[in-house]
Amino acid sequence: MENGVVKWRFKGRQELIDASAGTVRAVCDAVVSNLNPSDERPVIALGYGDPSSFPSYRTSPIAEDAVVDSVRSAKFNSYNSTVGILPARRAVAEHLSKDLPYKLSPDDVYITIGCSQATEIILAVLSSPGANILLPRPSYPYYEARAAYEHLQVCRFDLLQDKGWEVDLDSVQALADENTVAMVIINPGNPCGCVYSYEHLEKVAKMARKLGIIVIADEVYAHMTFGSKPFVPMGVFGSLAPVVTMGSISKRWIVPGWRIGWLVLTDPNGYLRKHGIVECILSYLNISADPATLIQGALLQMLEGTKEDFFSNIRNIMNEAADFCYDRIKDIPCIDCPYKPEGSMFIMVKLNMSLLEGIDDDLDFALKLAREESVIVLPGTVVGMNNWVRITYAVERSSLEDGVGRIRSFCTRNSKLKNPLCHKP
Amino acid sequence: MENGVVKWRFKGRQELIDASAGTVRAVCDAVVSNLNPSDERPVIALGYGDPSSFPSYRTSPIAEDAVVDSVRSAKFNSYNSTVGILPARRAVAEHLSKDLPYKLSPDDVYITIGCSQATEIILAVLSSPGANILLPRPSYPYYEARAAYEHLQVCRFDLLQDKGWEVDLDSVQALADENTVAMVIINPGNPCGCVYSYEHLEKVAKMARKLGIIVIADEVYAHMTFGSKPFVPMGVFGSLAPVVTMGSISKRWIVPGWRIGWLVLTDPNGYLRKHGIVECILSYLNISADPATLIQGALLQMLEGTKEDFFSNIRNIMNEAADFCYDRIKDIPCIDCPYKPEGSMFIMVKLNMSLLEGIDDDLDFALKLAREESVIVLPGTVVGMNNWVRITYAVERSSLEDGVGRIRSFCTRNSKLKNPLCHKP
Repeated sequence: MENGVVKWRFKGRQELIDASAGTVRAVCDAVVSNLNPSDERPVIALGYGDPSSFPSYRTSPIAEDAVVDSVRSAKFNSYNSTVGILPARRAVAEHLSKDLPYKLSPDDVYITIGCSQATEIILAVLSSPGANILLPRPSYPYYEARAAYEHLQVCRFDLLQDKGWEVDLDSVQALADENTVAMVIINPGNPCGCVYSYEHLEKVAKMARKLGIIVIADEVYAHMTFGSKPFVPMGVFGSLAPVVTMGSISKRWIVPGWRIGWLVLTDPNGYLRKHGIVECILSYLNISADPATLIQGALLQMLEGTKEDFFSNIRNIMNEAADFCYDRIKDIPCIDCPYKPEGSMFIMVKLNMSLLEGIDDDLDFALKLAREESVIVLPGTVVGMNNWVRITYAVERSSLEDGVGRIRSFCTRNSKLKNPLCHKP
Repeated sequence: MENGVVKWRFKGRQELIDASAGTVRAVCDAVVSNLNPSDERPVIALGYGDPSSFPSYRTSPIAEDAVVDSVRSAKFNSYNSTVGILPARRAVAEHLSKDLPYKLSPDDVYITIGCSQATEIILAVLSSPGANILLPRPSYPYYEARAAYEHLQVCRFDLLQDKGWEVDLDSVQALADENTVAMVIINPGNPCGCVYSYEHLEKVAKMARKLGIIVIADEVYAHMTFGSKPFVPMGVFGSLAPVVTMGSISKRWIVPGWRIGWLVLTDPNGYLRKHGIVECILSYLNISADPATLIQGALLQMLEGTKEDFFSNIRNIMNEAADFCYDRIKDIPCIDCPYKPEGSMFIMVKLNMSLLEGIDDDLDFALKLAREESVIVLPGTVVGMNNWVRITYAVERSSLEDGVGRIRSFCTRNSKLKNPLCHKP
């Protein structure tokens, strides 16, 4: 202390700022901060996959009742075992086993704070010194952020746009080395909305087996498909290579704010246990935050009780919204939709930069769209696709129509073409 | 692959196993696993501070109603801002401001997954290369586990048993160096049950100011005092040195399984913001799990609506339980209670190893007590006090009486004295 002035010795950790910079949250925050407060129209938020605030997407009354019952029982107010409460683990094991050729045990299931904590856990556990992991490009950026935080090296294999965003298995093989421990696949796909066939997933499993690596299967959009291909869980091929499946109630039950998900070892040969992964998961859980017991207490009733009607209704709404989005965007100048989504909640839109006037790139597009039209979209750079944007169609239909209309105005206004609307087929 | 045998390349991360080994959870699990399944008596669990499953400690109906209202409103099903929802932040700011000489803003408050995630956040943010932090001895072991995980160096200052477990400020000054960034105090104390006076806390703040470090104030047991000293929040002295206050609804509302807490910057001079700590907290929150929005939606109603009756009733029950424990343990051979708890939920019990027959140390005591009497206590080694055990008295009174009786039987049976019961005053 000099002249009564204290020298404060603490400072922030730069590494955290770097790891967080490219997340969906950080980039959406930047886009949102560019909104024009004097625009009196409602903001149309197409940046996140979270329709829970819209009346058409309200969760099932079964789910709400399940939480109320949990609260009123006073049985779920306690700290829980780090792995999750047994009824919840058992419910998830039974729920997932319906789609698998073998039966999961509750011990295979760890209840997590949404799929995002499941991601944290598996990346933390695999971050031995020198290890690397293979991520798809495009991908969901949380993987990269958590890998950076854990000092886990990342290599990127391509998804093939002209093959329905399938994994480029040649690039997987070329990238893998003796330090590669796992590859991530996201199915149904975020950001592309692709859905993988049984045959393709089998090829992925065979490649993982050949390379001696784990498949981390992000299935947060499980069963949210509306194209020709049904959802097939990666765990079906768990006997070929060990699969770590991640899922949640966030998307299918449309309650992301309840923060309940799971990390599941779909590994009937028990390789993950034999190689110390289970022990490390348990250790990590001992030193990390737990999902609310209160909501875990509702999981059994939710998973067993929710009727197929609820899911099929949501799928229909999403299917129609995806069709609407795809058809309308085709008619908008300067942007294009090369791929019609078959699942998840997103459509990738390609920007034709040569036709856009005064717009530098996808981030600039998103910032100006927010400023001029109060519409939020996610710049594609965030998901690894420069000069694309990711749009969610999982919003109330009237908002979607309004939002797509505003995007049309924006693109028309910022087109280099004299009569932009004539230049689309 | 040789002869069809795949060489799996993944392995667990040893560091995680090491970091987790000394946590309360890991050690309690080990003690629990030593229970004798053929003992038909109920297990008396005095290891954790979580009375929520006992009828006498059921949370307030106000709190239950608040969650039901949150669910039924369907307004809290969405992902939330990483910092917490505004009504929850505002409610915590107003709740804490009642005891402070200045007014907190909602921006000073981050809603967390219990106090444990608040701990994670602040330790992650302060873990710049080379930095160290001062922890009390005894202490709550989660600090050490998270510091190990973040590669944050730890130094230990003593709490002075003969001065009501006050901070040994001389040892704080002697330990601090130019890389010290913060010190932790836990008040009301875990594991000791001590409560710090206004004067002592002021001295702590002055020392922190002199050293240029943050005070991290773990106030998860805030207002749970029943001795002569009232609870004084460390934030009262936030203008002397920046204070990061951590708290939660877990203990006072007896709902640890709801997993809602807070990290609050009680720093009216804004030093934490100026030194980049706020930016780093925001970045860390972008890459970590969120507390359930659904339960955040109940926080305002809980904090504003819960009547003083509820709290005073709980305090009375705890006070009587602490008195009972203290008085009875004094009469048990081979163990002693040098300090009568004035707050939190724990009493520290000293083992007289020279009088115990065939018991090696506190861990051995806890393991054998579990085996022979189906009573779980926490070995003191875990909290930094060899040959002590930590006992919670916050259980149903009948269980407490049963548990203390069994401890008496155990100690009497394992005493070297011929007539052990005659040797206590």
